[in-house]
Amino acid sequence: MALIDYADAAPEVRAVFDDIKATRGVADVNNFWKALAVHPPTLKRTWESLKQVMAPGALDPLTKEMLYLAASAAAGCAYCTASHTAAARAKGMTDAMHGELLAVLGMAAETNRLAEALRVPIDQGL
Amino acid sequence: MALIDYADAAPEVRAVFDDIKATRGVADVNNFWKALAVHPPTLKRTWESLKQVMAPGALDPLTKEMLYLAASAAAGCAYCTASHTAAARAKGMTDAMHGELLAVLGMAAETNRLAEALRVPIDQGL
Amino acid sequence: MALIDYADAAPEVRAVFDDIKATRGVADVNNFWKALAVHPPTLKRTWESLKQVMAPGALDPLTKEMLYLAASAAAGCAYCTASHTAAARAKGMTDAMHGELLAVLGMAAETNRLAEALRVPIDQGL
Amino acid sequence: MALIDYADAAPEVRAVFDDIKATRGVADVNNFWKALAVHPPTLKRTWESLKQVMAPGALDPLTKEMLYLAASAAAGCAYCTASHTAAARAKGMTDAMHGELLAVLGMAAETNRLAEALRVPIDQGL
Amino acid sequence: MALIDYADAAPEVRAVFDDIKATRGVADVNNFWKALAVHPPTLKRTWESLKQVMAPGALDPLTKEMLYLAASAAAGCAYCTASHTAAARAKGMTDAMHGELLAVLGMAAETNRLAEALRVPIDQGL
Amino acid sequence: MALIDYADAAPEVRAVFDDIKATRGVADVNNFWKALAVHPPTLKRTWESLKQVMAPGALDPLTKEMLYLAASAAAGCAYCTASHTAAARAKGMTDAMHGELLAVLGMAAETNRLAEALRVPIDQGL
Repeated sequence: MALIDYADAAPEVRAVFDDIKATRGVADVNNFWKALAVHPPTLKRTWESLKQVMAPGALDPLTKEMLYLAASAAAGCAYCTASHTAAARAKGMTDAMHGELLAVLGMAAETNRLAEALRVPIDQGL
Repeated sequence: MALIDYADAAPEVRAVFDDIKATRGVADVNNFWKALAVHPPTLKRTWESLKQVMAPGALDPLTKEMLYLAASAAAGCAYCTASHTAAARAKGMTDAMHGELLAVLGMAAETNRLAEALRVPIDQGL
Repeated sequence: MALIDYADAAPEVRAVFDDIKATRGVADVNNFWKALAVHPPTLKRTWESLKQVMAPGALDPLTKEMLYLAASAAAGCAYCTASHTAAARAKGMTDAMHGELLAVLGMAAETNRLAEALRVPIDQGL
Repeated sequence: MALIDYADAAPEVRAVFDDIKATRGVADVNNFWKALAVHPPTLKRTWESLKQVMAPGALDPLTKEMLYLAASAAAGCAYCTASHTAAARAKGMTDAMHGELLAVLGMAAETNRLAEALRVPIDQGL
Repeated sequence: MALIDYADAAPEVRAVFDDIKATRGVADVNNFWKALAVHPPTLKRTWESLKQVMAPGALDPLTKEMLYLAASAAAGCAYCTASHTAAARAKGMTDAMHGELLAVLGMAAETNRLAEALRVPIDQGL
Repeated sequence: MALIDYADAAPEVRAVFDDIKATRGVADVNNFWKALAVHPPTLKRTWESLKQVMAPGALDPLTKEMLYLAASAAAGCAYCTASHTAAARAKGMTDAMHGELLAVLGMAAETNRLAEALRVPIDQGL
């Protein structure tokens, strides 16, 4: 797949790349954005949604990033697992926190599968 | 599927149910455990693993529970989503926190899929 | 979704239903086939493929049925998990065998997730 | 991701590695365990669970290994598919058995998807 | 889970519901939107994204709707499969088209699984 | 995994390869078929099913190919995503069509996940 670098990007793509770099304080954007630039409307919409969703709110940025990592790893996305592991570490996830996140992820996978294989009925009152 | 209630359970199953009730301070165990009681060794091993994994550590109990919920919802397990939503609420997850968790979950699903469909190469250095 | 019963089925559908009943020695076909009858070419092709795949070969029928159950449960298909659990029991799967199959299924889910979350490189020589 | 070799491992990690090597009669552990060693409690718990689950019981070791492979392949885990294919071959899975396992796996995927897309209701009595 | 009806909705939720009804020419919104109304920012963002994505473009509305259905069914979402099957029918999907879509979906599931289980390397030049 | 080339293939495998090449007008078969040749009955059955499913019908070949791509990408199969992207392009999928397909795929993933996490009940009348 093609990755579109800043130097080769159309103005509408550069505008999104500039906003990503300014918002995150980084020198270049990740490959994800360079790949998504093949369809500028999807690039712009996805970035604007992500920026809104990941802004601080009732949950702090590290918790949001770890939730993003847990969801991405549970969905088996290798690229996403790599990039959100790095992002969570940059926001303060320690080795011990990462280890516990992995342990939760593994237990969830096991009990998810058992609950489905046993067709457990949802508890009264939920 | 059969659910095994305390009254009908063998001693080795009752021992696990007793430990779940004591550890969690609840009057009865969830349907998941009643279903898993069809295979006592799996019941015992799963509970002991879960108890160890969910104990407070580098991550607090609410964060662990929300990670469990995110992983379960990302895996599409309806029973697990229902029970871990309830558990997270019991540990302090507010409506606003739940809404943000859902937003992260949805964005992760979208970007996971796009990253895979575009076969984005993992960034240098990760 | 509509289920098409034998009495209401077109001749090409009845011919498939007749073959299923004769091959399996059952009085009626499962709901899966009644639902699939909305598209007769898919009904016919799927049944003929399934009959070929599930015939005795290097693996015995019970092992094939348990593999079908494991794959269906790992994929989270509730209908398939229910029907292949019943089929495996009819072919001789005991409670103990079912319990061990569930245990393997749960461990596989846990280690699958951990291997992906850790991006473990495939071992040399495999 | 880091892989922790025996020479660099802490005593609690070495103890698990030693038990894996002794139980399996192998000279070194797979990359999975070297990766999991980043979090010793998860390494220890996962190995002890796996050892218990894969011990001979109502199902023989080869059947358990093929179920593990079917579940891993159905979940799309590349590392796990590679390592459990090798393990199943080491326990006696022939080319013909592997071919039939693949055929079951493919049919299960197809019928799982059709059953879900048609929202087939679970048959009476199951 | 709570469904929020128009009569009970806050002004910001009503504004989104009004836009959905006007855009689609329907008397009421689907349950999906009533459920999503628990988090108004996610409701608004999701609707605006969906409206943009599903607008006519290089692909016609029926093709987009069938692609949405194929992706939802492949992901095993029962609610989404039901609602997008209905939406595709409303846009002109006939029984024959639906049957062929199901056949493609089933074959894709089967070959996806086989390609992964065999770890097929991507062809040169792709 | 082994790939079986035409020169090394048994007559029953060559017959399938010849039919693929003639049907598609290509000089060689994709790696998928070379890998599947390890089990000739599965190779033959899979090809014959695929040929029947992908033949022109109520849906045109490009629409079928894009549905195949959407289902494969939603299931996260990297090989299948690569090969069906190429096949769809060969049948006329433009950059704009591909971009819109990706956008639909991403939105479907997001709304699938939200619908499941909120356990939305299926709308009356569907």
